[in-house]
Amino acid sequence: MTTQAQMPSTDRTRVRRVAELANYERDTAYAIIDSAYLCHIAFVDEKGTHCIPMACWREDNHLYIHGSNGGRLVKLLSGGTQVCVTITHLDGLVLARSAFNHSMNYRSVAIYGSFERVSNEADKRTALDVFMNKLASGRGNEVRPGNDKEFAATSVLRIALDEVAAKVRTGGPVDDAEDVSIPVWAGVLPLTQLQTTPVADDGITVETPTYVRNWDCSK
Amino acid sequence: MTTQAQMPSTDRTRVRRVAELANYERDTAYAIIDSAYLCHIAFVDEKGTHCIPMACWREDNHLYIHGSNGGRLVKLLSGGTQVCVTITHLDGLVLARSAFNHSMNYRSVAIYGSFERVSNEADKRTALDVFMNKLASGRGNEVRPGNDKEFAATSVLRIALDEVAAKVRTGGPVDDAEDVSIPVWAGVLPLTQLQTTPVADDGITVETPTYVRNWDCSK
Repeated sequence: MTTQAQMPSTDRTRVRRVAELANYERDTAYAIIDSAYLCHIAFVDEKGTHCIPMACWREDNHLYIHGSNGGRLVKLLSGGTQVCVTITHLDGLVLARSAFNHSMNYRSVAIYGSFERVSNEADKRTALDVFMNKLASGRGNEVRPGNDKEFAATSVLRIALDEVAAKVRTGGPVDDAEDVSIPVWAGVLPLTQLQTTPVADDGITVETPTYVRNWDCSK
Repeated sequence: MTTQAQMPSTDRTRVRRVAELANYERDTAYAIIDSAYLCHIAFVDEKGTHCIPMACWREDNHLYIHGSNGGRLVKLLSGGTQVCVTITHLDGLVLARSAFNHSMNYRSVAIYGSFERVSNEADKRTALDVFMNKLASGRGNEVRPGNDKEFAATSVLRIALDEVAAKVRTGGPVDDAEDVSIPVWAGVLPLTQLQTTPVADDGITVETPTYVRNWDCSK
């Protein structure tokens, strides 16, 4: 990844405690984001600090979310409130020979900044198309598209991927030299997100589309 | 679940937008927490709002985390800063017959309050034992236990599970009546966290323990 553009680090995104895990490269951050359907958004309102899970997707150098115009969250976030948006994939438990060297393998991205509302109607529709195609490629051409009322009731917000910290841990345990001979199993217990057998709604008689037939990885 | 104790709702944890999903029952919240290895912690420091993934575990009515004494995070959180700790499991994509009725199945818990340091040495060791047994039952008796220096360098923090909002969505799409006859596949594309084949560290010759042999659910 040495040829990738570096993302500039700021005082806020520089990873302080485990510097060897820090990774500011854009492609790594993009891949972590693109593997996620959900992010956690931290923000402050008059009642305190909150952390809310939201569906998300990426287009170029922005992360997108959407929500109801009437919702408190959309109103607050589109007003420029500072947020931190975090995505984390847990890839495994790392079992070391000593209790204190146990760890976890993961990939995470923290995005700092603020959301802006996508106010141009064409841009908003394009963004929601990108989201639908992320969920199921081509599905946008099959379902009933949004009508004017639905579009009007929905806001699309985006945040630039400019102030971003990516952290990745991979590989086996790192034991102290004097612990390596301890006769205990050590290694990684991997975890992954699995796509399992689709469940059709009642009364479905149409042919199963490719993205549904290809979904199941559990067999 | 009608016999379970209700968790009191507060102005902060009452779910406003999708009230039918709200679920304040203690056992639901506990089950969501116990299925997780990671939480996201939102907090504010002098640089702004942050959202950090942390390993976590539950004991009775508290959620626990641990970290290095020297770390900024432990210092800040143990000082009583207000936090919101959120855990989310994504269970599937919900494909509806209209674009705007697409949804996701998920289970999430948001915990409001502040952390306190577990300062009693025996309680701290017990809490870390509970964590080790969550990762791998019985492993605490096999590995080199923490020494005094390691314990001294580590803080265990906990937050009471008193102000908690659980939200759960399950089941298929909810389409508008006039959309039900649209000839498009609708249903759920499920997602689950899968435990895959353990990877032993180099040089492991000891017998594979039960919790490693039983880990793999991918075959």
